[in-house]
Amino acid sequence: MLAVVPPTYNPSERRRHVGNVLLELIADEGLAGTNIRAVAERADCSVGAIQKYFRTKDDMLEFALQLVGERVEARLQSVDRTGTLVDVVRSWLLATLPLDAERRAEARIWAEFSVRAIGHRPYSAAAIAVDNDIRAALTEYLEEERRQGAVSADIETSTVADALIATSDGLALTMLYDEGREVEALAALDVVINRLLPLP
Amino acid sequence: MLAVVPPTYNPSERRRHVGNVLLELIADEGLAGTNIRAVAERADCSVGAIQKYFRTKDDMLEFALQLVGERVEARLQSVDRTGTLVDVVRSWLLATLPLDAERRAEARIWAEFSVRAIGHRPYSAAAIAVDNDIRAALTEYLEEERRQGAVSADIETSTVADALIATSDGLALTMLYDEGREVEALAALDVVINRLLPLP
Repeated sequence: MLAVVPPTYNPSERRRHVGNVLLELIADEGLAGTNIRAVAERADCSVGAIQKYFRTKDDMLEFALQLVGERVEARLQSVDRTGTLVDVVRSWLLATLPLDAERRAEARIWAEFSVRAIGHRPYSAAAIAVDNDIRAALTEYLEEERRQGAVSADIETSTVADALIATSDGLALTMLYDEGREVEALAALDVVINRLLPLP
Repeated sequence: MLAVVPPTYNPSERRRHVGNVLLELIADEGLAGTNIRAVAERADCSVGAIQKYFRTKDDMLEFALQLVGERVEARLQSVDRTGTLVDVVRSWLLATLPLDAERRAEARIWAEFSVRAIGHRPYSAAAIAVDNDIRAALTEYLEEERRQGAVSADIETSTVADALIATSDGLALTMLYDEGREVEALAALDVVINRLLPLP
């Protein structure tokens, strides 16, 4: 019986398909230029089918952010942790920088969401929760490395994690509106990583 | 004759008054929640008087950005340059961080503008021009300090300027939606400044 059901009726596959189309559209047009009808057309679905996932612009942003969270988490988990401290931290931060179409879409959604979160309690609470998760994961990794002697004792690991994430966030935003600055942005990231993570 | 003209008819004073009201409103409500009527009411002017400065949301953002540019430039120029390299760079970056109502308004407008600049040529060109000015000013200062022996020769000054500005931008955005992180953000900024600007 299952074999005759078209693959698009697999709920998780359809969700992924709709999600990919939504992220592509936001990457191309921004959230302001994305609407339910355009998503339905590009996904080759009815408007009603899309409305199962989101009904309003706010719902759309929340759905997009959830997808970004899933993607970024999967990408961070796939980072090779066998290299040096500097290599691992570098790979980790690169995983979120807008260096290809997929990460560009994700970074744009995060930037749009962050700005909308200013003075808007439910969004700011969600943004702060994401920040806390990322900071905690990076701090924990730095603490582990310190126990193994790869990070000097005079470093406050959560402060270093904050600094690394802030640098990466700042570079990401610039790279989104200035696509020509990739080389300079990566050089700036390397200076910060190399100077903040000295061997003991 | 001049004495009978009420002070609000001084064009530059009225422009400053309208500008202050606009920046206050954007700081409180965001650009999405700011409109011409609300500016007119708070500035105690007619809608027509406000429309001399801007007519559309895009005009409003451009006018606000111009005011922010003037304010930030004035504040940067007033930074005391007689201290150590680290002190001067720190004061310079603090001049744009959202640490009071005025800088909060400015940082919020810059964040809204940056996100709107993604994929939008006139805005991205304006944002890139602002970035270039700031980077050039900071790089020039670092080069001067290098000539006086306060910056080591192995540092690429424009890369260090990029890194410092990116860190500051990233921290500013987080501080806008998470007002409780001021202490941690300043600690992160200090770590980056102290490690990127070592004495030779």
